[in-house]
Amino acid sequence: MRTAKVDVKENSKIKIIPLGGLEAIGMNITVFEYEDEIIVVDCGLSFPDDDMLGIDLVIPDITYLKDNADKVKAFIITHGHEDHIGSLPYVLKEINAPIYATKLTLGIIEGKLKEHGIEKLVKKKVVKHGQTVTLGSFKVEFIKVNHSIADAAGLAITTPAGIIVHTGDFKIDYTPMFGDTTDLTRFGELGKKGVLAVMADSTNALRPGFTPSERNVGKTIDHIFAENTKQRIIIATFASNVDRVRHIINTAAKYNRKVIVEGRSMVNIINTATELGYLEVPEGTLIDIEEMKSYTDEQLVLITTGSQGESMAALSRMAASIHKKVTIKPGDTIIFSSSPIPGNEKAVTKVINELSMLGANVIFHDTHVSGHACEEEIKLIYSLLKPKYSIPLHGEYRHLKGQAEIAESMGVDKENIFILSSGDVLNLSQSEAYVSDTRVPAGGILVDGLGVGDVGNIVLRDRQNLAENGIIIVVMTFEKYSNQLLAGPDMVSRGFVYVREAENLLEEARATVNDAVLDCIDRNVTDWGKIKMVVKETLSDYLWKKIKRNPMILPIIMEVE
Amino acid sequence: MRTAKVDVKENSKIKIIPLGGLEAIGMNITVFEYEDEIIVVDCGLSFPDDDMLGIDLVIPDITYLKDNADKVKAFIITHGHEDHIGSLPYVLKEINAPIYATKLTLGIIEGKLKEHGIEKLVKKKVVKHGQTVTLGSFKVEFIKVNHSIADAAGLAITTPAGIIVHTGDFKIDYTPMFGDTTDLTRFGELGKKGVLAVMADSTNALRPGFTPSERNVGKTIDHIFAENTKQRIIIATFASNVDRVRHIINTAAKYNRKVIVEGRSMVNIINTATELGYLEVPEGTLIDIEEMKSYTDEQLVLITTGSQGESMAALSRMAASIHKKVTIKPGDTIIFSSSPIPGNEKAVTKVINELSMLGANVIFHDTHVSGHACEEEIKLIYSLLKPKYSIPLHGEYRHLKGQAEIAESMGVDKENIFILSSGDVLNLSQSEAYVSDTRVPAGGILVDGLGVGDVGNIVLRDRQNLAENGIIIVVMTFEKYSNQLLAGPDMVSRGFVYVREAENLLEEARATVNDAVLDCIDRNVTDWGKIKMVVKETLSDYLWKKIKRNPMILPIIMEVE
Repeated sequence: MRTAKVDVKENSKIKIIPLGGLEAIGMNITVFEYEDEIIVVDCGLSFPDDDMLGIDLVIPDITYLKDNADKVKAFIITHGHEDHIGSLPYVLKEINAPIYATKLTLGIIEGKLKEHGIEKLVKKKVVKHGQTVTLGSFKVEFIKVNHSIADAAGLAITTPAGIIVHTGDFKIDYTPMFGDTTDLTRFGELGKKGVLAVMADSTNALRPGFTPSERNVGKTIDHIFAENTKQRIIIATFASNVDRVRHIINTAAKYNRKVIVEGRSMVNIINTATELGYLEVPEGTLIDIEEMKSYTDEQLVLITTGSQGESMAALSRMAASIHKKVTIKPGDTIIFSSSPIPGNEKAVTKVINELSMLGANVIFHDTHVSGHACEEEIKLIYSLLKPKYSIPLHGEYRHLKGQAEIAESMGVDKENIFILSSGDVLNLSQSEAYVSDTRVPAGGILVDGLGVGDVGNIVLRDRQNLAENGIIIVVMTFEKYSNQLLAGPDMVSRGFVYVREAENLLEEARATVNDAVLDCIDRNVTDWGKIKMVVKETLSDYLWKKIKRNPMILPIIMEVE
Repeated sequence: MRTAKVDVKENSKIKIIPLGGLEAIGMNITVFEYEDEIIVVDCGLSFPDDDMLGIDLVIPDITYLKDNADKVKAFIITHGHEDHIGSLPYVLKEINAPIYATKLTLGIIEGKLKEHGIEKLVKKKVVKHGQTVTLGSFKVEFIKVNHSIADAAGLAITTPAGIIVHTGDFKIDYTPMFGDTTDLTRFGELGKKGVLAVMADSTNALRPGFTPSERNVGKTIDHIFAENTKQRIIIATFASNVDRVRHIINTAAKYNRKVIVEGRSMVNIINTATELGYLEVPEGTLIDIEEMKSYTDEQLVLITTGSQGESMAALSRMAASIHKKVTIKPGDTIIFSSSPIPGNEKAVTKVINELSMLGANVIFHDTHVSGHACEEEIKLIYSLLKPKYSIPLHGEYRHLKGQAEIAESMGVDKENIFILSSGDVLNLSQSEAYVSDTRVPAGGILVDGLGVGDVGNIVLRDRQNLAENGIIIVVMTFEKYSNQLLAGPDMVSRGFVYVREAENLLEEARATVNDAVLDCIDRNVTDWGKIKMVVKETLSDYLWKKIKRNPMILPIIMEVE
């Protein structure tokens, strides 16, 4: 067992409370608490699962932060991806604390805050790699790491209990296209000082070896430009991958091509990155899509959104021949500089097929590398940091378990490795580490339009039922005191069956319901709840027998005085 | 350009009409027509796309067969997978012609026909590999091919226009676990005779190299048994992969383990295969799940369904801890002997995570191989058959295009390669080949419960809308002649918002609608269609402004005399 060598109070104890990010990739947010001080690292969202019908996005439950709002000193953000920054606009409305991040990260955040109209209400502090900010008892040092977005940072958080290293999302790229390699020296120095705990990215922990360098993608793109000198080139990639976009623009300039940028998020990021000096676009290279007509195919490159097959994105609209400005034609060279995020495989395949049918040459091999560290890179980090404790972050359970196994193989004691769940409270000191018996509230809050948290399980269950079976509404009007049926039962359906094709079925169903209602009246049933139940059961039985379907049945009774 | 050498009439022309299977993998069915004779090869279904809400399965549009019912001589089935046999029960109800297939294939079909209660109405003929059946002017020879189900066949169809080879789904396995290698010699002989056209499996046409042998999986399974002697072993695989199931059972017997079979489709296939002599289970190896208690972990193997993460399958229920008989525990060794079918990735991952959380050791590397030929295998077939024409089958557009490129590289003239769409009519003779200007009806018919074709685009659009936004019903009762509002407007919602949390919103919405209705009455609007439209627009505007959501709004007016 190793012991940390920094000068810390032997019995100082800090709490680490992840509020998200441990059940799936997405919604990263971790609370660090010492006595009456809290700092929050990252504040991301996740995208809805397939069964969250109609939901736009999912944000973390921050009840714990609201209950301890006075303590919150800062939000520390490692990089500008949605799963690390996306819930800031929602969370900051509840907990207004300053944000600390690198320049590009803050630039991207600023864009989001503007959309929500709260950019002026929030304090923001730019931090450079290598710089340390002091927040009460915490000292947070930003450390350069490579990732699929520029300006990503790992964190060395010095606490009264010891140094905790949070890698953020990282990989180790010895030959990045721009900028430096992950600051391995600094990680080594921290290891020498003594690191209490490592919290590292688990995304690729199950993949052996090393993640390839971004330069490999650069080379492939160079080759494609060299081999397709006569064709128009269209490249879809992640808007946030600023380095890749930069390389594409440079390559275009080298081959005397003009660049058109299509898709709102792509335009936004390129503007932000250019303003902040992360993207130096050669004079005259970028042109507006309206100028496309003035150039031949061999003079053009389009950089576009839609690499995930998102139905409304620019590339998908081109593939479906409904893009207003761009018509795909035989010979177009189309590069997917991306790989499908799990769940998007079929959507991406659909777009590739559509583009192929239009005669385009679609390229998707060797045109992307991951931004996350594989097994050997994670080992390297452990070998430098030599932590006492390991807390795998950022992944599904199997990924976290993958990192736990790596940590153990690197000499971390098995009982010092903690695979946490969101809401767990880990207490950490030089002498001990344990998870509290009581958990704090954690989980996803669903956002649908402007509604935050007003769609829950009951509504989702109804949506699921409506989606699969449709709905039949049965309306009747009764006279209030006489209990006389004044009108109906009438039946209206939606999403159940094509009415014109099923007139007989529906008419027979109505007659069956009608009989059941008249029978209730004959038997002097005056309880409308009872009548509704009879309608529901009668209709449900009838339809199951006839057609083996279970639409939602909604009886409505109106009363007239 | 090559010419076929068989003795055929120079000007005889046949028609090849695929009715499905060319837009996606699934629903394979191809019509071969010569004058007044038709044979149909395969008769499959496909599973619904994500946007076909509530649909159970999709079957081909067989209008063309119904219009030519007198001509249909036979259904020839290449193998027993759902995408080749699944729509038989539906199609045979319309077109009753005999089925020709190998023994296991017919056994599986028989099970399906029994479920639909039509097994006695249909003639079935068992054909052995190497055997030829004569059907009017067609001669159909069944040729042994390897695939992920036993008893698969390719077809050499001798027509008055020449020999057409239909590979069925195939791979080339030089070291199959059971039985012979794809009959390359026979393909070679046919090539010598002269082959007019090849219709081959395109599934893996984009994958370079060779598909590995089933024996590789066999070895991995052996190793896992050898290394996990103390653990209970649970294996999920495709029920129809009889050879693999057979190897698992044999391996279990070798290691003195008892085998429990879980999941309805697995039990069915094992019963069918055993009855027909495809599966010789060592005496006493199979036990009932009720006997599980009498054995220790190291004496047990479970073979189960659920390898695709299907929510109701046995393995998924074990993972979710809701299986009645099997409780997963730490140490269980669980093998996914399968790879996720596109679209199922997230479901499979979910099950893997759940099993890992329960402490199981989940293995999914090197435990599956594809049943479809890769690029080099397809080349081998072309090199043996030397066809004049190529008609790639079985795949998405990009796969068909992949095979087209392979065919061209193997010397087939580019203008002799036909990438067809379902419904295309290809006319083929020794002297020419062309696609007719007129297409025949083709496409997917949706099956929902017992309803075939009664759910179309309008219903699906409604379901999509209901799924994403829910529904609000606004009911009012008017007096018929006076136009007086007797009751309502009342509002009922489902799948829109959790009502208790949104009382204010709903009350304000109701008041807004009420005002609009009263305003109509004041203005003496007597057209109820008009009033409904006002209700819809008013409520829709209100909700969009307030909460940025678009539920389906359904105004219903009842009239009382």
